Amino acid sequence: MSDFLKKARHSLSHILAQAVQREFGTDIKLGVGPEIKNGFYYDFLIKDPQIKIQEENLKSINKNMEQIIKQKQDFYCISTDLQKAKEINIFLGQELKNELIEDFEKEGINNITYFLNLIPMKAKESLLKGTNENYIKYYEAVNDFFQTNGYIGKDKFISFIDMCEGPHINNTQDLDSKSFKISKIAGAYWKGDEKNFMMTRVYGYAFEDKEKLKEYLNFLEEAKKRDHRVLGKKLDLFCFSDLVGPGLPMFTPRGTKIINLLQEKVENICSKYGFEKVITPHLAKIDLFKISGHADKYPEELFSVKSQRKQEYALKPVQCPHQTQIYASKKRSYKDLPIRYMESNKQYRAEQPGEISGLSRVVAITVEDGHVFCTVDQVKQEVMAMVNIIKDFFVDLGLRGNHWVSLSVRDMENLDKYIGEEEDRQICEKMLGEIAEEMNLGAIKCEGEAAVYGPKLDFMFKDSLGREIQIPTVQLDFATPKKFNLKYVDKDASEKAPVMIHRAILGSYERLLVILIEHFAGAFPFWLAPEQIKIIPVSDKFIDYCNKINNELIKYGFRSKINLDDDSFAKKIRNGEIQKIPFLLIVGEKEIQNNTINLRDVYNKQQYEINISDLIKKFDELN
Amino acid sequence: MSDFLKKARHSLSHILAQAVQREFGTDIKLGVGPEIKNGFYYDFLIKDPQIKIQEENLKSINKNMEQIIKQKQDFYCISTDLQKAKEINIFLGQELKNELIEDFEKEGINNITYFLNLIPMKAKESLLKGTNENYIKYYEAVNDFFQTNGYIGKDKFISFIDMCEGPHINNTQDLDSKSFKISKIAGAYWKGDEKNFMMTRVYGYAFEDKEKLKEYLNFLEEAKKRDHRVLGKKLDLFCFSDLVGPGLPMFTPRGTKIINLLQEKVENICSKYGFEKVITPHLAKIDLFKISGHADKYPEELFSVKSQRKQEYALKPVQCPHQTQIYASKKRSYKDLPIRYMESNKQYRAEQPGEISGLSRVVAITVEDGHVFCTVDQVKQEVMAMVNIIKDFFVDLGLRGNHWVSLSVRDMENLDKYIGEEEDRQICEKMLGEIAEEMNLGAIKCEGEAAVYGPKLDFMFKDSLGREIQIPTVQLDFATPKKFNLKYVDKDASEKAPVMIHRAILGSYERLLVILIEHFAGAFPFWLAPEQIKIIPVSDKFIDYCNKINNELIKYGFRSKINLDDDSFAKKIRNGEIQKIPFLLIVGEKEIQNNTINLRDVYNKQQYEINISDLIKKFDELN
Repeated sequence: MSDFLKKARHSLSHILAQAVQREFGTDIKLGVGPEIKNGFYYDFLIKDPQIKIQEENLKSINKNMEQIIKQKQDFYCISTDLQKAKEINIFLGQELKNELIEDFEKEGINNITYFLNLIPMKAKESLLKGTNENYIKYYEAVNDFFQTNGYIGKDKFISFIDMCEGPHINNTQDLDSKSFKISKIAGAYWKGDEKNFMMTRVYGYAFEDKEKLKEYLNFLEEAKKRDHRVLGKKLDLFCFSDLVGPGLPMFTPRGTKIINLLQEKVENICSKYGFEKVITPHLAKIDLFKISGHADKYPEELFSVKSQRKQEYALKPVQCPHQTQIYASKKRSYKDLPIRYMESNKQYRAEQPGEISGLSRVVAITVEDGHVFCTVDQVKQEVMAMVNIIKDFFVDLGLRGNHWVSLSVRDMENLDKYIGEEEDRQICEKMLGEIAEEMNLGAIKCEGEAAVYGPKLDFMFKDSLGREIQIPTVQLDFATPKKFNLKYVDKDASEKAPVMIHRAILGSYERLLVILIEHFAGAFPFWLAPEQIKIIPVSDKFIDYCNKINNELIKYGFRSKINLDDDSFAKKIRNGEIQKIPFLLIVGEKEIQNNTINLRDVYNKQQYEINISDLIKKFDELN
Repeated sequence: MSDFLKKARHSLSHILAQAVQREFGTDIKLGVGPEIKNGFYYDFLIKDPQIKIQEENLKSINKNMEQIIKQKQDFYCISTDLQKAKEINIFLGQELKNELIEDFEKEGINNITYFLNLIPMKAKESLLKGTNENYIKYYEAVNDFFQTNGYIGKDKFISFIDMCEGPHINNTQDLDSKSFKISKIAGAYWKGDEKNFMMTRVYGYAFEDKEKLKEYLNFLEEAKKRDHRVLGKKLDLFCFSDLVGPGLPMFTPRGTKIINLLQEKVENICSKYGFEKVITPHLAKIDLFKISGHADKYPEELFSVKSQRKQEYALKPVQCPHQTQIYASKKRSYKDLPIRYMESNKQYRAEQPGEISGLSRVVAITVEDGHVFCTVDQVKQEVMAMVNIIKDFFVDLGLRGNHWVSLSVRDMENLDKYIGEEEDRQICEKMLGEIAEEMNLGAIKCEGEAAVYGPKLDFMFKDSLGREIQIPTVQLDFATPKKFNLKYVDKDASEKAPVMIHRAILGSYERLLVILIEHFAGAFPFWLAPEQIKIIPVSDKFIDYCNKINNELIKYGFRSKINLDDDSFAKKIRNGEIQKIPFLLIVGEKEIQNNTINLRDVYNKQQYEINISDLIKKFDELN
C-alpha cells in the first residue's frame, strides 16, 4: 500500500465517522477507525435503541462523505497530554476514547494527538445543508471550547474532531470523491474482545482513484459469482447440517470424488519420491500434545475428549505428534533412514464460532501431511525432493503460473518466540538458504515468518482472480525429534536424534477445494471433474446406442452417465452446462448411422461430430 | 455343550476351590466358580498379604485336583433356608457368600443349596497326604458341625463344602483326571463391578476326555503362533504408543498398505453396484445422536468433546446418522433413488479399559459402512445386490469356504426392546425371509438376533482355525429415516420416507485384520502382501541386473524391493521367509546369463528358474 493510499484510507475513516455523526447525531460513540486491506472501517457504539445504522443507510452515508470531501476540510493536528485529552473526550462525550487512553498509560505513552477537521468559515453554510440541527449546535459548542482553550484560531470552524495518531492527508480535496465506496455493516466487539459489548462496524473500500475502485468492485463481483459456498451448493459438492454443527462439512459423492482424485494425485507423486502412507487415530492422551507443545501453546483451539468411563483424550490439532510415535515404535538404524510418512487425515481445531465460514475456516480439517525423518546429511536431498514434488503437483493442477518462494526465517528481534537450540536453528536456516540458491528458487528472505521449531520454504501462488495463495511448505525441525526422544543408531553405534522435515503439498483439502472451486469457477479440468461426461439422447429410441458408448467410456475409466430424466432435450443440455460437465455427448439418428457422437465441449463452447475411437483418444489425453 | 460336560466343568470349579484351600488354607475366601466356554474358573479373595497364587502354583493346583478326583468324592446336596445358610457361611468363614444371599433375598429366593464333597472314611488317610495341617483341623471342625446339626451321617467325612446351586456330577470318579488343565490366573472384580475389590481368578480348560482336551490345546498353540498381536509386531503392521493411549492403533506403512488394498477391493466391488463414496467428520452435536438414539442407549460408550470456546460435540460411535444428513441436504425425488453411500472412516467408542486388547477391541474403529436409501419397491433388488457384493468380496478374500446365513429376527417375547412401527417390522421380516429363500441362502431363522431398528441377514464364516466369524450384514431399517424426517417426493407428488438399508461388507478393518493375520498366520496372499517380492543378489556385482528387474516389476505395479542390507546371503533368505514375503527372487551369475531369475516360492516351499516374462505373467495372475 502506498503511503498516500494508507493516509487516504485512514482519512476516509474519519470522514465516515463525521458523516455518521452528521446523520445520526453526536450521541453516537466513536470506537476506532483504521485503514485496512482494500479500504477502511469505523466502529460505532449506538446507545439509543431508536437509532440503527442499516444497509439502507449506506448510500446516504456515502453521499454525505462525498459532500464532506467537496468542502475542502483541513486535517489539523493538535497535541496534548493525557490528562487534558481525557477532559476533551469527556467534553466531547466520547468516553470510549478514554478507555484507549488508559491503555496508552499502561504502555507509557505521555502525549496524544487529535485531528480536527476544519472547514473555512466561508464553507460553513454548506455544512449546514442537509445536516441535522443538533449536530450544528453541538459543534458550535465544541468550536467555542477549542477557541477558548486556544487550540484553534477564531477564523476557523471545526466540523469534526477525533482523537487519533494519524497520519492523514492535508485536505479532503486531496481525495477523489469517487475513489471509495461504503460497502457493508457488521458487528464487532469493542477492542476485539468477545467479553466486551458489540459495536456497529461500517466498512468501506478505497483505492487510489475511481478506476482502481471499479477494478476492485469488478473483482468482487467475479469472486462472488465464484464463491465456493454458492458453487459448492449448486454443484452439490459438500453440505452442512444443523444437527452436525457449523464448521463440520460433509462431502457428497461429487465432492468426495474431487478429494479422492486430488489425494490420488498427490500420493502418486509422493510415493515416487519414497513416501509411504500411514494411518493414525484422531485421539491421543493430552501428554502427546504437552510434549509437542500444542497443549500449552494453543489451549483454546484444543478439543478435550472424555467418557463416562473416565477416559480422557485430546483431539489432534496437527498430524506430526502421532507420526513421531510410529517412528518411535521400533529401533531405527541409520540404514533405515530416511523414513518418509504421509497421511491424509482429519484434524480438529476449535475455531472461534464467529470465524467459521464455508470450507475456508472449518473445525474439521482434512490435511495432507507428511514427515521425513533423516540424518543431517540427508536433509538436502530430501528438501530438494519435496520442492520437486511441489512443482510436479502444482503444474498438474494448473496453478503453477507465477509463483514466488519465501525463505521464512526467525524474527531476529523476538528470538524467545522460537524453540530448539540456537546452533540447530542456525544450521537449519543456512541449509535452507543454500538449497533455495542451488535450486534457483529466487527465494525472498522473510524475517519473522519461520515456524516455532524451524525455518521454512513457503510457496506462494496466484489464482485466476489474482489472489495470493500460500499452501505448500517445507519446514526443517531439529526440536521435535529431541522432545520425543527419537533416536537412530548411527554407523559408529552411537544414538543420535534424526532431523524431522515437515512438508505440506496441497495443505488441507478444504482450503484447496475453496481455491480450486473459485479459481475454475466450478468448471473443473477434465481429470478433476466429478462428472466428466453426460450422454444425451435426442430421443428415447437411441438409448441402446447410448448405453453402448457409456459402457465403453466407463470401461476406459471415464466418469460418464446417461441423462435419463424426463426433461426436454434443451433442458438436458442446459442442465449439463449449469452442472459444468466438461463434455456432453449428443446422440441422434445421424450419429448412430455414422457410428459417431456429437461432442459439445461446454468449456470451450464448441460442438462437432467425432468418432468413438478419436473421442476416447481425446479424453485419454485430457485425463 | 452337552449336559455332562456342563456338569463336569462346574464340578471341576469346586474341585479347583477345594485344591486351592487345601494348598493355601481355609482363610482363602470363595467367590463364584461357574463353568464357561472351554472350561471353568473360580474367584478367590486372599486377605493375607503373605499368600499369593501365582503362575508357578498352577501345576501343583492341577496335581492336587487330580488327587481329589482319585479320592472318589461324592457330591452331596443339602438344602436350607437363607437364615441357616448365613449361619453356616459365618461358621465356614465365607462372608462373601452372604453377600450373594442378600442378592437372592432381593430376588425373592427362599431356599439355598450346599454341595458337600464327601469322601468315605476309608479315604480319609489319603486326604491327609500332602495337605496342610490347618486344613485338616478346619474340616474336622466343620465335619463335627455338620454331623451335630444332622446334615450328614457319622460315617461320612467332609473334605469341602460350598454354597452352590449345582448341578454337579455324582462322584469325582465320573471325571477323567486328564480331561482338564488349569490354564492361567487373572484379576477380576467381585461381582464383575469395577467399584468392588479385585479377586484372583484361576482358569481351567475342560473337555469330555483327554483327546478332546489335547485337540483344544493344540488349537490354542496354533492360535498363539498366529496371535495377531505377536505377528502384527513381528511383521511391523501396526503399533501402539503410551503417549497416544491404549486402543488407539497406529498403522505403519505395511499395515496401511493392507488396509488400503482391502478398501480398494471392497470399494471397487461396491462401486460396480452403484455405491458412491462420501466423507463425514468424526464430530457432531449431541442432538444428532439423541435423534438416532445412540446417546440414550449407549451413553457410557459415547465420547463427549468440549473446547474452551464452549463448543460441545460427541465423537461418532457409528456412521449412519452423519450419512442421513447428506441425504437430507437436498430435496430428493423418487427419480434420485436408490441413493447409495459408502464410507471407510473411523468411529470412536469408549470401551472398558480392561477389555481393550490388540486390534480385537479398540477405541478407534475404522468401519467400512454403507447405506442405501430407497423406496419399498427397490428393497429387494438392493438387498440382493448387497448379498452379491458380500459373495464377491469373501470369495476374493479366500474366506468364503463353508459359511451359513442367519435371518436375524426379533425376540418375540421381548418386543419392547425394538423401535419402529409394528407394521414396518413385519414387512421387513417377511421381505428378508423371501429374499433369503429366493437366493437359496439356506438362512437359519435366529430369534432375538435382530437389530434394534429392524431384521438382518448375517453371514457367518469360518477361519482356518475353525473359529466362527460374523462380519457381513444387511439390515432393513424403516425407523431411522422417520426419526430424521427424511423424505422423497413420489410420482404422485406426495412426500414419503425412504427405506434405509444398512450394510457392512468387511465390517471394521481392525477386526478383519485380526482375522486375516490369524487366518493366514501372517502369510498374506500375493495380492494382499504388503511386500510382494524381495530381490536378493547373490553378490553385489549383480545389483545392476536386480535394479533392472525391480524397475520392471514396479512398472507393472508390483510391490518389489531389493535387499541391499549388509547381511549374508543366507540371512537375507531367512529374513525374507520370516517377513513372509511371498516370493524371493535370487539373482546370480547363471540367471544373468540366462536372462532369468531363480524364484523362491516361500509359501509353497518351491524354488525354480523362470524367465522374466513368465514371471510377470505368473504375478499378474496372482494379483
